[in-house]
Amino acid sequence: MSDRPQTPLLDLVNDPADIRGFSDAQLERLADELRQETISAVSVTGGHLGAGLGVVELTVAIHAVFDTPRDKLIWDVSHQCYPHKILTGRRDRIRTLRQGGGLSGFTKRSESAYDPFGAAHSSTSISAALGFAMGREFGCDTGDAIAVIGDGALSAGMAYEALNNAGHLGKRLIVILNDNEMSIAPPVGAMSSYLSRLYAQKPFQDFKAAAKQMLSYMPEVFREGAHRAEQLFKGATVGGTLFEELGFDYIGPIDGHDMSQLLPVLRTVKARADGPVLIHAITRKGKGYGPAEEAADKGHATAKFDVVTGKQSKPPANAPSYTKVFAESLVAESNDDPRIVAITAAMPSGTGLDHYGKMHPDRCFDVGIAEQHAVTFGAGLAAAGMKPFVAIYSTFLQRGYDQVVHDVSIQGLPVRFALDRAGLVGSDGATHAGSFDIAYLGCLPGMVIMAAADEAELRHMVRTAVEYDEGPIAFRFARGEGVGVEMPERGEALEIGRGRVVREGTKIALLSLGTRLGECLKAAEELEAMGLSTTVADARFAKPLDRDLVLRLAREHEALVTVEEGSVGGFGSFVLQLLATEGALDQGCRIRPMVLPDVYIDQDKPAAMYDRAGLNAPHIVAQALAALGQSTGDAAARA
Amino acid sequence: MSDRPQTPLLDLVNDPADIRGFSDAQLERLADELRQETISAVSVTGGHLGAGLGVVELTVAIHAVFDTPRDKLIWDVSHQCYPHKILTGRRDRIRTLRQGGGLSGFTKRSESAYDPFGAAHSSTSISAALGFAMGREFGCDTGDAIAVIGDGALSAGMAYEALNNAGHLGKRLIVILNDNEMSIAPPVGAMSSYLSRLYAQKPFQDFKAAAKQMLSYMPEVFREGAHRAEQLFKGATVGGTLFEELGFDYIGPIDGHDMSQLLPVLRTVKARADGPVLIHAITRKGKGYGPAEEAADKGHATAKFDVVTGKQSKPPANAPSYTKVFAESLVAESNDDPRIVAITAAMPSGTGLDHYGKMHPDRCFDVGIAEQHAVTFGAGLAAAGMKPFVAIYSTFLQRGYDQVVHDVSIQGLPVRFALDRAGLVGSDGATHAGSFDIAYLGCLPGMVIMAAADEAELRHMVRTAVEYDEGPIAFRFARGEGVGVEMPERGEALEIGRGRVVREGTKIALLSLGTRLGECLKAAEELEAMGLSTTVADARFAKPLDRDLVLRLAREHEALVTVEEGSVGGFGSFVLQLLATEGALDQGCRIRPMVLPDVYIDQDKPAAMYDRAGLNAPHIVAQALAALGQSTGDAAARA
Repeated sequence: MSDRPQTPLLDLVNDPADIRGFSDAQLERLADELRQETISAVSVTGGHLGAGLGVVELTVAIHAVFDTPRDKLIWDVSHQCYPHKILTGRRDRIRTLRQGGGLSGFTKRSESAYDPFGAAHSSTSISAALGFAMGREFGCDTGDAIAVIGDGALSAGMAYEALNNAGHLGKRLIVILNDNEMSIAPPVGAMSSYLSRLYAQKPFQDFKAAAKQMLSYMPEVFREGAHRAEQLFKGATVGGTLFEELGFDYIGPIDGHDMSQLLPVLRTVKARADGPVLIHAITRKGKGYGPAEEAADKGHATAKFDVVTGKQSKPPANAPSYTKVFAESLVAESNDDPRIVAITAAMPSGTGLDHYGKMHPDRCFDVGIAEQHAVTFGAGLAAAGMKPFVAIYSTFLQRGYDQVVHDVSIQGLPVRFALDRAGLVGSDGATHAGSFDIAYLGCLPGMVIMAAADEAELRHMVRTAVEYDEGPIAFRFARGEGVGVEMPERGEALEIGRGRVVREGTKIALLSLGTRLGECLKAAEELEAMGLSTTVADARFAKPLDRDLVLRLAREHEALVTVEEGSVGGFGSFVLQLLATEGALDQGCRIRPMVLPDVYIDQDKPAAMYDRAGLNAPHIVAQALAALGQSTGDAAARA
Repeated sequence: MSDRPQTPLLDLVNDPADIRGFSDAQLERLADELRQETISAVSVTGGHLGAGLGVVELTVAIHAVFDTPRDKLIWDVSHQCYPHKILTGRRDRIRTLRQGGGLSGFTKRSESAYDPFGAAHSSTSISAALGFAMGREFGCDTGDAIAVIGDGALSAGMAYEALNNAGHLGKRLIVILNDNEMSIAPPVGAMSSYLSRLYAQKPFQDFKAAAKQMLSYMPEVFREGAHRAEQLFKGATVGGTLFEELGFDYIGPIDGHDMSQLLPVLRTVKARADGPVLIHAITRKGKGYGPAEEAADKGHATAKFDVVTGKQSKPPANAPSYTKVFAESLVAESNDDPRIVAITAAMPSGTGLDHYGKMHPDRCFDVGIAEQHAVTFGAGLAAAGMKPFVAIYSTFLQRGYDQVVHDVSIQGLPVRFALDRAGLVGSDGATHAGSFDIAYLGCLPGMVIMAAADEAELRHMVRTAVEYDEGPIAFRFARGEGVGVEMPERGEALEIGRGRVVREGTKIALLSLGTRLGECLKAAEELEAMGLSTTVADARFAKPLDRDLVLRLAREHEALVTVEEGSVGGFGSFVLQLLATEGALDQGCRIRPMVLPDVYIDQDKPAAMYDRAGLNAPHIVAQALAALGQSTGDAAARA
């Protein structure tokens, strides 16, 4: 393609072994080409751009110095892995990133030996790397373990737990702190301020001299043998006592875009480290691409774009996103109720709380990538008498699960959980799917769980959560745009545990929870066309169930199909439990609970993913017919 | 009772307001009396002794200086709260601790206004206290927020997340680090070494002078007004840069048993703190009671005991505990398989890994109270080629849930989870119940879940987990003693997804998962006595289900009852899902899935808890009869 950048050096690279003979000057040029190729690829696919651009030099330097894939390179979160994928034999597929059937937008073990550990959630890399490092000590065929972790990811307790354990074990382990002073949003928390101070104290000039010194020391060091690397690092250290207190040798801060600093440091570490080492590299998210550098989020996630102008080509929206509806609804409620506060774990834009924070800056808390704390902080606020909304993706609430159980549910505290990205989520794939929340929350005594069928419902559910003050309540909603229904000015509180019948029929009942309601309505039309009168109901509540509605639907129809965007153990299971306990199955009940299948579904367009999951209208029709003992063919013949 | 200690001062105390007029000398005597009363009470009830004895002076000093309950005192974990309960109006019930109908062994909101936030799991206190502190800023009627947290609890990432956020927000908040160099076991991790160094650098002598100085400053300080407390603290600080880097004023280390240090420090903080303050108090777990001080675990948890001798009166065991069987089985397997390693999150004795660690010290990892890291560290080890066993209580795995999903399950890594304390657990109550793991693990694609019906089964399941290397596998087992079955020398690997029929019948089928099998057998005998031929099967696997067995039991019996020690959304739900999907409910299936009820059950003897849960033999009989459309009376008449 004529649009593609000229990349003569990169064209020579099939895998990292090819670059290990390059000169330092060639590696520097290779980094430039890799940056251009990354920009070009993401302009076609969309995806995470800024993070990858920030680690181009790091990527080249690590693969040049270390013996990947025997040495295990673990990217934290791994949305910065596109340059890594290009260098590690996947360049030919890089323009399929995040597409159905294409490369994952994250590292993935099944995709390449160069991805020894997959990621997508934050702050797991040091733990995983320590696992590899200890495996090596037990004789597993693995070399160095290198975790590259952002400063944002370091706000998570899990990273601290891993540092604490690694410092204690004292084995060789390399942690590269990729400090771009950004997680997704500008970072928060005292650790972030600490890192800034480290850099402010003495920027690179001091380090540059030390790096040169390293180079000159190198041969001598090789000769000396047992001389501990720590001594060498000390000269290069301009702070970092916090990491040293935790048992790490600290080296830095260094300029993560300067090959003349990166390469000698990595070579020295490779040659000399005999315990845990933390290399503090300062980078710029979006580095080297103007439109990304200038964007507020530094090009964190982007649609397809024009490389020259940076202009993104998003299809026009037909309806407001659920996220936006949530945020605007919460702003409106907060205008009237001073007890409402909102909490996000480092996802202000993803959850819509950036908008909320503009309207109510003093009532919006970004606690960092700290889901455990976010939930219990919310519990404390609720115990004090506030109305906290924890705005979080379904998949990320998994990180605060015990806090939901132990601090919120057992104590019956009225924390409100706004669960964004419920169900399948598209190009982020399996790691971001919100598949399990109905099961993992629904088993907790006293939990109230709602699911929004459309954006107007979501508005009502926000209102319901504001009003409900007796205990914990969660409402889940889908990723992306609403369905375009007319929006009420303000939400109205729903009756707890009461569903609604959307369409009355006599033979088949479709009971939906969440946004599959649209597919249920389509299915109902098809069924009617076959002469099968069909009721469609929206359960609204997974818990408490609308007992009367469920029992009536089962009793008054020949078949009952439940549909939800969640796994087994959720809504369908609660319906079955109710029917079984009430004896409603004793004389026969043609019930078909439709749930997400027992597999992880790779990234694709959401509709395609739901097709694979078997949760679209045709599947609902097929299940309804099967429940009646008919095949699609039978019904078609009769109709 | 003549055995009770003489406590003339304590006898005057109905609630903390009563001690605020006491002189410092009286407070010191009060602490002595409170210690004796605590020892006396726990000698009768059993429970957590060492932790409470370590904070007697702290308890008195905090309540004397602060305005509880308006000031919110939050005990981390809160097993050290017995002296607090005695001082806060619960002395008359203190000898009912941890008994059915008695006081909880932990703080509990529903029990007292002096317990503003319940706990039992570790490291939640700073998050909760920060919630209260911010609530105060929003005008909630709450005073100071004081978290008392142990050094062990500080190894958890959640505590770090909270410190990080509190340092960032900068509001007045008081954290008392109760540093007894013990969590339950001796502490691990780099943070622990760091704390030791702080104390080693300069023990109390320097601080004592500073504390005196504080006292002399006090009136002046009050006059001065705006003078920042920080300046005052600086003089008292002999380390603590790590906490200062995180935005806290650090004060200490001080002797947490010396009222002449505690009182002035707390008074100064009360008068002067204008941001987050961390007070580092050194204490001794078990302090002041010889037998506890001398015990390896410092009297962490004890049975009833004789106060004079310290001798515990444990009833003789009829069978080995499940924990012990697990540990011994894993030792035996490890003798033959060098790839096995074991991980605990600060619970070596609770999980039996203390025994394992003696036999295989290099293969046993105590990572601190760091469940998130524990799981992903295990995933890294598995990816490197090892066979990691994460030994953890069911309730604590909730703290590593996302890591199970994201790092283990999605990647299909063969991490083995040994889930101790599954089901209801007795005197620890609702916070420690292992009620949800079948639901929260069973929804994950590809997860294998076993439950041991007896201790021989557990041995087989350990073996099965060693052999199974295709993906994650969990086995759950109960708290306490096994049932006394004959033990095989070594376990034999079970066929994955295959249950066993324990007793053949024709009319009723009881399908058990876990240790309710004994109750099912009892129920079967009763049913047989009524003339109802009963099959009893042990599912062994919650996932994958034994499809053939489930379908056959449903088909060949008039009624099917499933029984498990878990919530809705688990085994029974999987059985219902299978039957519904297969059309086995279409023509009627008298099925009764028996699960834990949708309430939290307070502490009691396990059998009594299962009685309240409705999961003992009589309840099983009743459900079977109900499924047949009979009452217990009908059946009795016919028999």
